[in-house]
Amino acid sequence: MTLPKALAFDVFGTVVDWRAGIAAQTAAFLERHLPGTDPAEFADAWRSLYQPAMEECRSGRRPFTLLDDLHLETVIQLLEHRGIKTAAIDGNELLDLSHAWRRLQPWADVPAGLAQLRELFPVVTLSNANIALMIAMNRFNGLAWDAILGAEVSRSFKPTPQAYLATAATLCVPPQDLCLVACHHSDLAAARSHGLQTAYIDRPMEYGGAPAPDASYAQQWDWTAADLQELASVFKSHR
Amino acid sequence: MTLPKALAFDVFGTVVDWRAGIAAQTAAFLERHLPGTDPAEFADAWRSLYQPAMEECRSGRRPFTLLDDLHLETVIQLLEHRGIKTAAIDGNELLDLSHAWRRLQPWADVPAGLAQLRELFPVVTLSNANIALMIAMNRFNGLAWDAILGAEVSRSFKPTPQAYLATAATLCVPPQDLCLVACHHSDLAAARSHGLQTAYIDRPMEYGGAPAPDASYAQQWDWTAADLQELASVFKSHR
Repeated sequence: MTLPKALAFDVFGTVVDWRAGIAAQTAAFLERHLPGTDPAEFADAWRSLYQPAMEECRSGRRPFTLLDDLHLETVIQLLEHRGIKTAAIDGNELLDLSHAWRRLQPWADVPAGLAQLRELFPVVTLSNANIALMIAMNRFNGLAWDAILGAEVSRSFKPTPQAYLATAATLCVPPQDLCLVACHHSDLAAARSHGLQTAYIDRPMEYGGAPAPDASYAQQWDWTAADLQELASVFKSHR
Repeated sequence: MTLPKALAFDVFGTVVDWRAGIAAQTAAFLERHLPGTDPAEFADAWRSLYQPAMEECRSGRRPFTLLDDLHLETVIQLLEHRGIKTAAIDGNELLDLSHAWRRLQPWADVPAGLAQLRELFPVVTLSNANIALMIAMNRFNGLAWDAILGAEVSRSFKPTPQAYLATAATLCVPPQDLCLVACHHSDLAAARSHGLQTAYIDRPMEYGGAPAPDASYAQQWDWTAADLQELASVFKSHR
């Protein structure tokens, strides 16, 4: 395999532990408004509304919408489903709750591993997050990227072809010189079908130890590593 | 004046010394192909083709085009005008020449000043440069930003309203909470007319000591400083 010229990262799951982070960020709210709720279960339920919300946009039934806005809509939907009258809650409290996705911490290997990878290649985000969400998250957890690309720049949510191909075009590289780094087989399968290189990182605790929902897409990826520091070593050994 | 919530930076002139950098980056090429040419004069001549090239796009006569591509076109135009048959020059040599704009160094106050400003606010680029150009330049000179916004994200060159307003919208702030930082009165005047805050940085050596072409736009700006470290101090003293 020829080395890529740039790396594009999935973020939720691959870089940050969204499940533990959302649980931690929603616990106080739940204690006030839904006492007895398991915050990790609430995180899973909120995340389960993520793909259906984006699918409205991908299908063309709705124009492209920022992920921050979808997070606010889906948490209101979830709270209403659980009997909360959200109209009675202060709007700023709901907005802050929806911004829990801006306050997530990386897996332990990420800070050092990402820095090592950025010494080798330009490294950008290729997430469904909007730019303001990513800026806030980076300022919260201290991570740094060469650029924030992905959904908002391509005006399209993964796994549409445009999300991957517009990212390569923005970087001025052909798709085969861009490598998607992700812990999700479904994301990698879409990237591969559009000509990108693929790097798989195992994140067995993304769902708290439960199996990932996209195991059926598993295949032999171009690059595989247990974490980002190992991925940097793998790339270095191929130079 | 209320403090802004984010800063957006002009880059060529405000952050990097394009004239000295282009002279340094083109000197060897000129020695080979146009001996006797003053590289600083060549830099000025190349830069003079910048606004007319963008104006083709702003006017709608031509679709939005990446600045890297305009740089290649304008340097070929300039060389042909000076009697060089560019078709006889290796394409990679011309491409590398056009990428001189990716290899510019900042003014002396920028590394420390930018870091101080980023401790206070999210700081993004609002340049007419495309994203790949900015990524390459940052990797060349070591500067870091919260995000690379501007022309390519807004699909429009300054001073169109869209270049400023789309940048504020991407940051999820109203225009009055975003402050443009620039050494060009014309850029600041456009930003102000679209509701942004304005911060003027004096760069008397941008044109090698010659007067700036946009002096007629000079006015009282919201914030003024001799350099970025002073600007950070000014903002801190207003907290």
